[in-house]
Amino acid sequence: MATNQEEVKLLGAIGSPFVCRVQIALKLKGIEYKFLEENMANKSELLLKYNPVYKKIPVFVHNEKPISESLLIIEYIDETWKQNPILPSDPYQRALARFWSNFIDDKIIAASIKAVHTVHDEKEREKNVEGTIEALQILENELKDKFFGGEEIGIVDIAAVYIAFWIPLIQEITGLQLLNAEKCPKLSKWSQEFLNHPIVKENMPPREPLFAYFKAHYESLFDSK
Amino acid sequence: MATNQEEVKLLGAIGSPFVCRVQIALKLKGIEYKFLEENMANKSELLLKYNPVYKKIPVFVHNEKPISESLLIIEYIDETWKQNPILPSDPYQRALARFWSNFIDDKIIAASIKAVHTVHDEKEREKNVEGTIEALQILENELKDKFFGGEEIGIVDIAAVYIAFWIPLIQEITGLQLLNAEKCPKLSKWSQEFLNHPIVKENMPPREPLFAYFKAHYESLFDSK
Repeated sequence: MATNQEEVKLLGAIGSPFVCRVQIALKLKGIEYKFLEENMANKSELLLKYNPVYKKIPVFVHNEKPISESLLIIEYIDETWKQNPILPSDPYQRALARFWSNFIDDKIIAASIKAVHTVHDEKEREKNVEGTIEALQILENELKDKFFGGEEIGIVDIAAVYIAFWIPLIQEITGLQLLNAEKCPKLSKWSQEFLNHPIVKENMPPREPLFAYFKAHYESLFDSK
Repeated sequence: MATNQEEVKLLGAIGSPFVCRVQIALKLKGIEYKFLEENMANKSELLLKYNPVYKKIPVFVHNEKPISESLLIIEYIDETWKQNPILPSDPYQRALARFWSNFIDDKIIAASIKAVHTVHDEKEREKNVEGTIEALQILENELKDKFFGGEEIGIVDIAAVYIAFWIPLIQEITGLQLLNAEKCPKLSKWSQEFLNHPIVKENMPPREPLFAYFKAHYESLFDSK
């Protein structure tokens, strides 16, 4: 638990899967924090000061010391507050957990975001849809237990919040088929289990305003060239 | 030190900066290992078995358990063999070390490799040359001591072996100016110090055959379209 001497802040924005990851990790640890809402169209001085390299959210600030990149923030949180471990203690299992968390970023999130945005390039879009489906299939085969972390949620589950919550949103808005319950039955079941986990449930952003926001953003892509 | 019961293997190829990173880390720890040379034009069954997702080197295999991705391998090595620490023990310093190691991969290596390969697209090439120079400048400002790790070599130094050894090779072969001693005096001095470190020195690949190999590869890019 954060003591009175500690100051814990999170610069973020509702609707970012990367910010959501950090919020879940903090909640799992029972850490109180101050949420500083960023407007990414008009970035704050604080964000530019704390993350001058990427100028992105989330930025986690612990006693004035800033850390960027959601997966690195989660590792820091796990190393700083020991209760309810998020990474496995065994070095080999830790390496695998890092590998699959990176895989979600590099193969699933990157490809699906490209698929959404390539509205004027059917070939590129198709390539990225296929890339996303293929990567989800690979991840499906890695799911051996209730959660990636076993009986409890771990870093891979938290990294995969994008799959549980954002991919269905994307599918509904764009009509793209990415996560198929027939091809990925375990991942589909996991999505429900994960979103129903009490800690996760109370940390998810409200669906309706996000849906409207992403839909407007998606429709605007067709106007630009 | 690896005991008799342990089997430590590295699937790699001479000339890969990512493989070289792991070799330096193993040497720093004093771990004996078996090097299995891969031909990337004709990948072995073992490589495809151990790294089915990316099919890339290096793959580190400890008692039949494979790990991919050089930075994750180094973290595993550091957590498994405690002597001569490669990552800092303080969680905040660890987060920063991971951040800058990823930065080298994402901003310096990625951009410079693109700059090399975009021989038919002057605009894209220029963009990536500038991106590399800018990223090197950012890293320059982070170098406060003899090494990124302080008085001893750490994970950021090992990640940056590409800057010390491969960037000069690229510059000589392509004529691109990436690392400028006037703009980056500290990084240039660091390169020399790093390459002269006894552990690093004995683990670097031979320059001449690599030069010839990369030069032939580079020249072949002009033939393809």
